[in-house]
Amino acid sequence: MKLVSIGTVAFDTIETPYGKAERVVGGAATYISLAASYFTTDLGLVSVVGGDFPEEELKYMQKRGINLDGLQIKKDEKSFFWAGRYHNNMNSRDTLDTQLNVLADFKPKLPASYRNAKFLMLGNLTPEIQSKVIGQMNKKPKLIVMDTMNFWMDIAMPALKRTIKKVDVLTINDEEARQLSGEYSLVNAAKAIHKMGPKVIVIKKGEHGALLFYNNKMFYAPALPLAQVYDPTGAGDTFAGGFIGYLTQVNSTTFENMKRAVIFGSVMASFCVEEFSIARLKGLKKTAIKKRLKQFEQLTSFSM
Amino acid sequence: MKLVSIGTVAFDTIETPYGKAERVVGGAATYISLAASYFTTDLGLVSVVGGDFPEEELKYMQKRGINLDGLQIKKDEKSFFWAGRYHNNMNSRDTLDTQLNVLADFKPKLPASYRNAKFLMLGNLTPEIQSKVIGQMNKKPKLIVMDTMNFWMDIAMPALKRTIKKVDVLTINDEEARQLSGEYSLVNAAKAIHKMGPKVIVIKKGEHGALLFYNNKMFYAPALPLAQVYDPTGAGDTFAGGFIGYLTQVNSTTFENMKRAVIFGSVMASFCVEEFSIARLKGLKKTAIKKRLKQFEQLTSFSM
Repeated sequence: MKLVSIGTVAFDTIETPYGKAERVVGGAATYISLAASYFTTDLGLVSVVGGDFPEEELKYMQKRGINLDGLQIKKDEKSFFWAGRYHNNMNSRDTLDTQLNVLADFKPKLPASYRNAKFLMLGNLTPEIQSKVIGQMNKKPKLIVMDTMNFWMDIAMPALKRTIKKVDVLTINDEEARQLSGEYSLVNAAKAIHKMGPKVIVIKKGEHGALLFYNNKMFYAPALPLAQVYDPTGAGDTFAGGFIGYLTQVNSTTFENMKRAVIFGSVMASFCVEEFSIARLKGLKKTAIKKRLKQFEQLTSFSM
Repeated sequence: MKLVSIGTVAFDTIETPYGKAERVVGGAATYISLAASYFTTDLGLVSVVGGDFPEEELKYMQKRGINLDGLQIKKDEKSFFWAGRYHNNMNSRDTLDTQLNVLADFKPKLPASYRNAKFLMLGNLTPEIQSKVIGQMNKKPKLIVMDTMNFWMDIAMPALKRTIKKVDVLTINDEEARQLSGEYSLVNAAKAIHKMGPKVIVIKKGEHGALLFYNNKMFYAPALPLAQVYDPTGAGDTFAGGFIGYLTQVNSTTFENMKRAVIFGSVMASFCVEEFSIARLKGLKKTAIKKRLKQFEQLTSFSM
């Protein structure tokens, strides 16, 4: 297997200024795997769901090539649930409810076929679980990408830093980069995080794009300005999925390919936000992805 | 004369997390003209100062080629004064003091040599004064660029809209674009503002760069991520100065040149914020501008 992703597979209830979606499919690993499945069909998912998770959604993932041998199904328990409300500007949100359910004592167990993957995507979960998954690999993957969030900085900073030390790429949003590093300038924040272990830092700035720090080199990918953003949920995970999906496809970790990976991450995220839940990520046409890629190319290209 | 700029020439007292600068030189027309002077030496300034404004500063502007025949000096009065304090994130600020002084009854009077300028930059001032300056031109310039701010939207929206109707390009920050249009999405905001008159809208997003809307085309220029931003005062005006300065130099208003102009505006603004007041804009070397331009090119360039 080329790419293994871990993270939640869950239900979300989401309120945005454009409407409400009740108990729709969500979860970091869901978004990551769906986005990555447009770049590689040799990928597996590590997570846990309850008996309440719809079988047809799992079948759809499998149809897209996502191996689910690493997905534990606990028939008598309930799936992880999150409810949130976005503010008018869509850049901030309140958590209304969090029910850990099956996540409360999740012990990831990688199937043998997963343990030689060259690319490992650690979606947002407790840093201990992320660390455990690294430990279950037969050897260090070619690239480990880790996503995390402010929640773990608030309650588990030491464990978080131990996990960060083991990864090659950290994807994180701008506020989180500031919190983690104690530096306001993102340039200085990236330098400080670099010293914690990761060679590469990707700072996600939502509607303002993403910054890639690769040794002393910097790359800035804009987000595509959109007329309507219906639901930002999962945009960061979708970005991560497009990012590592592309790197898996080209089997490379050079700066030039990481730049392209950031663009593909942004392309996939730009689709994600156009509808609630994973609706827009289902059945995307290659031509639609190509067309949007073109828009990204035009958006920043200039000649002197 | 090729380029005429109007706006304030003033004193600022500025507090940022990095320090305080008392009664230093500021003003929209100061920043605009200095930035533009790196692209054309056939430019003039329309403004008013009191007898308190230092002669050596005026001499420096003249040394840079800026014609001051349009600058009224009211010996017995005081220059416009603004005091502000920036918050930690540098993206928002509080106004601590505003003293109109000479601005209270400023009546711009364009010297005859100014009235055939092909490029007119209306820096932030009351919309009535901006309108009056357009009326004093012998014929419609090839390009009129207007900058404004939320203050006029709060107290003089009808007059503001009358002036906006007469200009080709409106430069405005993201929050102001939202306030002016009533649209949250910047894509929709630009469309709404387009209907108010301007063919081109440049939305300045501070550390997040700038968006150019040109008919149905879009261009995104990042801001250069900097380790230290000492003082954002005048960054928007400096951007406008670099923008119209470049267009004046190439005597063109095509999309390709507007894209380059946005990049040059961003280049000049990236210098502006590195020191208090106009310090960094003084005596910039051509090689420094070229080097930074290269950094902007590298920042967003990728190939697929």
